[in-house]
Amino acid sequence: MNNWKNNLCKITPYVPGEQPTGDIIKLNTNENPYAPSPKVKEALRAYDTGKLRLYPSIECTELKKALADTYGIDTENIFLGNGSDEVLALAFRAFFNSDLPVLFPDITYSFYDVWCELFGIKYKRIPLDKNFYIQSKDYFIPNGGIVITNPNAPTSIYKPVSEIEEIVAANTDSIVIVDEAYIDFGGTSAVGLIKKYDNLAVVHTFSKSRQLAGIRVGYLMGGKTLINALDAVKNSFNSYTLNSLSQSVALAAALDKDYLKKTASEIIKTREYTVKELSKLGFTTLPSSANFIFTTRTGTSAKALFEGLKQKGIYVRYFDKPMINDYLRVTIGTKEQMEKFITAVTELINE
Amino acid sequence: MNNWKNNLCKITPYVPGEQPTGDIIKLNTNENPYAPSPKVKEALRAYDTGKLRLYPSIECTELKKALADTYGIDTENIFLGNGSDEVLALAFRAFFNSDLPVLFPDITYSFYDVWCELFGIKYKRIPLDKNFYIQSKDYFIPNGGIVITNPNAPTSIYKPVSEIEEIVAANTDSIVIVDEAYIDFGGTSAVGLIKKYDNLAVVHTFSKSRQLAGIRVGYLMGGKTLINALDAVKNSFNSYTLNSLSQSVALAAALDKDYLKKTASEIIKTREYTVKELSKLGFTTLPSSANFIFTTRTGTSAKALFEGLKQKGIYVRYFDKPMINDYLRVTIGTKEQMEKFITAVTELINE
Repeated sequence: MNNWKNNLCKITPYVPGEQPTGDIIKLNTNENPYAPSPKVKEALRAYDTGKLRLYPSIECTELKKALADTYGIDTENIFLGNGSDEVLALAFRAFFNSDLPVLFPDITYSFYDVWCELFGIKYKRIPLDKNFYIQSKDYFIPNGGIVITNPNAPTSIYKPVSEIEEIVAANTDSIVIVDEAYIDFGGTSAVGLIKKYDNLAVVHTFSKSRQLAGIRVGYLMGGKTLINALDAVKNSFNSYTLNSLSQSVALAAALDKDYLKKTASEIIKTREYTVKELSKLGFTTLPSSANFIFTTRTGTSAKALFEGLKQKGIYVRYFDKPMINDYLRVTIGTKEQMEKFITAVTELINE
Repeated sequence: MNNWKNNLCKITPYVPGEQPTGDIIKLNTNENPYAPSPKVKEALRAYDTGKLRLYPSIECTELKKALADTYGIDTENIFLGNGSDEVLALAFRAFFNSDLPVLFPDITYSFYDVWCELFGIKYKRIPLDKNFYIQSKDYFIPNGGIVITNPNAPTSIYKPVSEIEEIVAANTDSIVIVDEAYIDFGGTSAVGLIKKYDNLAVVHTFSKSRQLAGIRVGYLMGGKTLINALDAVKNSFNSYTLNSLSQSVALAAALDKDYLKKTASEIIKTREYTVKELSKLGFTTLPSSANFIFTTRTGTSAKALFEGLKQKGIYVRYFDKPMINDYLRVTIGTKEQMEKFITAVTELINE
């Protein structure tokens, strides 16, 4: 009796950052400190709730058109999903069906190996170099696929498109996914290469530069063969992944390109301020092209600093893993929030 | 070169019903003809769009509380997902990991075998009896899990809770999923049994009786061990499956229980009217406890009728499959819509 317990899936899930609420400064999950575009509010206020009785559009045509226009590609080059996490999960299932291992850096988004475990995909972690850099040549080995986060997380370091191209060009027998969740904070997207390389897929999200983590919209851009394979997997899992409200809100945000530029450039300015202030306090910060920084200080325990900040109501992210356990990942908030962060850090290191 | 194409997943996806738009009568995907509760509109108008910059609540506590209260269970007995399709897909992955086949009827929701194919789960289709009925005794055989849609689709026939209990009690070594998408249109839910049987999972949706197909919210109710296994799989796939707007809208709808009752009873009345009118025209309709009917007429080609109705701007669903290819599945719309449907059918059979 109760042998049904033997049939349960045994798996170790991904653990996202804490989501505390209340009167705190939340710099731990790379959310954007600014409200979404005012167009989002307008779209939501104008939404005809009567339409919610109907299933969402499965084609998401309007949203795809807005994105296609943004990147100079066709709507058939776009796949939309319930956050870039879902897009990536489905892409792993759709693209990685080789006997050779999928390659990704040892220090990167920690969901990649979880998806491989879930789908039974072989994988191999490729070490970053001693400067936390992704070296292209390390990916010139037989593989069943490659995933590069660019800028990488939690290191924040950007790899130029020319170097991404080296990897894609050297691996025309496998599919290369470039996860560009943070690309709008200082990098150049590799999306310009999808016409040249049909084995390249570029993944973006509305959660970071478009201030919409709450609506769960992500997208993958690539050649039609890749999109078709992804659609088939999606339609074998959940036909209607993107609800009507998120489609409508994402469309409003996608059309307001100026707002993205303006807020991203504010965050870049605040990032530079934060790095400079931390430097004065003796911190070394990796060169960031993201809306977060990765910083360390000789003689200061990152874990103790993480705990101390939490006690002061400031949440950052600490990873208890070899090579990065001396670092803190700090999301860039508003200027005012970062001033408070610097004050708190100053107090803690002088205690 | 281009060997990457060998790595693509080969799979045959589920094909949902057509989603035509424009000036038509849409009776093909079992949507509710009424607008959602007025509380939904209020919730959306009052929503603070600034909060969308943040990730959604991963616990969905408020929504779980409202549902727990509705069914007299605890919040820890509830798992929420991006539509009941996603909930079911994740449940298949979480619950069905046996070498024995999972059992479900040969005529039922056609997504079940697609999920089995996607996750490599063995399955066996159990024939309905000649009256399209699910016979409990057919499920008293060794298995790796059982899925019963109740009321079944597309047949619309309800199986009493006492008979569901027979199946659950006879299969304590495997997990039984009861998919109750249509339960609010005349059936009694098996959720009352989850405290007695820890191998029972009951799945509901906001898409049908709560008029919210557009927001993609479904949920599974069961013992804590089942919910924990499901949470682990979900967190290995996509941490934040339920966006903030859908959570807020679903909460408003879940709290307005009177509106669900009122609109469901309208649909039941209209269903009875439709069945009676069809009977006058010589149709035989299976006994329905759902918001759709399954109907046939000797001497009339269901496929021709389906095409004829479409030409008149009325969309119903036809399945070109053995045993059911003489039937049409017709969603119950408003009284006015069903009057137009009856008029159109009358014209077509007299042509």
